[in-house]
Amino acid sequence: MTELRIAIVGFGKIARDQHVAAIAATPGATLSAIASRNASLPDLPHFATIEDLLEKGPPIDAVSLCTPPQVRRAQALAALAAGKHVMLEKPPGLSVGELDPLVAMAKDAKRTLFATWHSRFAPAVEPARQWLAARRIKSVHISWKEDVRVWHPGQGWIWEPGGLGVFDPGINALSILTRILPRPVFVTAADLSFPANRDAPIAANLALTDAGSLPIMAEFDFRQTGPQSWDIVAETDQGRMTLSGGGARMAVDGKVLAEEPEAEYRGLYRRFVELAATGESDVDLTPFRLVADAFMLGKRNVVEPFVE
Amino acid sequence: MTELRIAIVGFGKIARDQHVAAIAATPGATLSAIASRNASLPDLPHFATIEDLLEKGPPIDAVSLCTPPQVRRAQALAALAAGKHVMLEKPPGLSVGELDPLVAMAKDAKRTLFATWHSRFAPAVEPARQWLAARRIKSVHISWKEDVRVWHPGQGWIWEPGGLGVFDPGINALSILTRILPRPVFVTAADLSFPANRDAPIAANLALTDAGSLPIMAEFDFRQTGPQSWDIVAETDQGRMTLSGGGARMAVDGKVLAEEPEAEYRGLYRRFVELAATGESDVDLTPFRLVADAFMLGKRNVVEPFVE
Repeated sequence: MTELRIAIVGFGKIARDQHVAAIAATPGATLSAIASRNASLPDLPHFATIEDLLEKGPPIDAVSLCTPPQVRRAQALAALAAGKHVMLEKPPGLSVGELDPLVAMAKDAKRTLFATWHSRFAPAVEPARQWLAARRIKSVHISWKEDVRVWHPGQGWIWEPGGLGVFDPGINALSILTRILPRPVFVTAADLSFPANRDAPIAANLALTDAGSLPIMAEFDFRQTGPQSWDIVAETDQGRMTLSGGGARMAVDGKVLAEEPEAEYRGLYRRFVELAATGESDVDLTPFRLVADAFMLGKRNVVEPFVE
Repeated sequence: MTELRIAIVGFGKIARDQHVAAIAATPGATLSAIASRNASLPDLPHFATIEDLLEKGPPIDAVSLCTPPQVRRAQALAALAAGKHVMLEKPPGLSVGELDPLVAMAKDAKRTLFATWHSRFAPAVEPARQWLAARRIKSVHISWKEDVRVWHPGQGWIWEPGGLGVFDPGINALSILTRILPRPVFVTAADLSFPANRDAPIAANLALTDAGSLPIMAEFDFRQTGPQSWDIVAETDQGRMTLSGGGARMAVDGKVLAEEPEAEYRGLYRRFVELAATGESDVDLTPFRLVADAFMLGKRNVVEPFVE
């Protein structure tokens, strides 16, 4: 197999924390360059912008866009136009609609566009899906509460329009939910709490359901200090399934049935290498559409200013 | 041709102003009943709810849902489950996502689900589409400004979450825009002005574009007194096309090329009769998706309270 030569574009926290090690651990993938205004790694070609990378950089086959969602579309466009495969961090962009032309462009160019949902690659997600498929689900409760100061230090873009605020982690929960449930879900009500000094919500409560009227509640909160929670609990006719740790561990009535070390980003790059081999795309916008709907139908509350 | 026996559900302003006369003027369509909490017409069977209508009403083939968007999904579900064709006023619901299960259900039941966009049936829309198809478009400007007190008196639902505020008329402009332009468009920025005492915006400015970077600006405003505007202006390599009066009149460099009396709702019901004859559905969610994206990526501004 030929190596997929990848450049990371946008070298912020997620690129450093996850992407570099995941590429290093993925057979068939090589990190060849970095494009970032501010940061890089020793011994790697570095460029300030994706345009410089594409024009003057070493030969690459693919880019992995780790920039904030507000600027990603233009970068994906440039990369596809240059014949590169493109991997998008989540959320896949600024709007749901902007993805359609990119998908069409990737198809025409026979290049891969991969809109990633890293949480779907958490180890207990597939066991949870399989377990639920054989049960009658009575209700689902999502609790996704984390301390934004710990997990998103200095990420000002998250509070800008299109940064999604607490939906930046919340969309991870929605990406798991839409994978493990047997039927499509949709939002029926939302309460969005906007800090007085910010353009994105710091907390959100959602009610969702499906064609079978399954009651689903989701609580997203960025103000959680102390224990953090990334849990999805499903009550079924055969007990309570708890998917915790962001999808790392699955238990039924307290008995752990699946638990493995986290390897989400390695899963993503393994999939990216597979996709790029044939130029196939993988763009599932379902979680992003749920977020757009929540913003459209949500009630807005103004809460106390957030100062980092 | 068998008559399509239609019941109107929700007998508010739009039902009285448009639907009754349009059904009366449409060959093959008959108004058979009304379901509405508050209002009806003489000589027609009347029921308080759609459930009563379906259970105790005269034989009908179809329902036309003219209720506020917040309650329409449950009514569409009940009607499809009872084997009726369903016509949805715009916007088609509370969320984009809730339409998917309805579309699937209509398909399974071989019944028509028709998500209407009445403005697309304005007489100059098709001439405008054809004229633009043969030109290079340089920019588009939408000005959709009306006095909410005149056009939406007492419609409290429009200010509730999911009522969309100024996007209730604005989505009409977007439904025309997405019909007359040659390529899909998407939102890149939005400014949303929320009255301090309301849950939906009273004004919005949008920037949109397409895969060819066409600059599109849209101004929606509910606070317009004096002359009202429902205009779309396109600058092209062969002059300025103005589509005005909500799609009623099309002119190029001031010369009127198309102008006919408004007959939008008759167009809708003609189409509904056609669709119901075969049980085919017509659900284009493009305009609704643009609104959801605008809410998701829009900057929120708080403006003075709106008191009707």
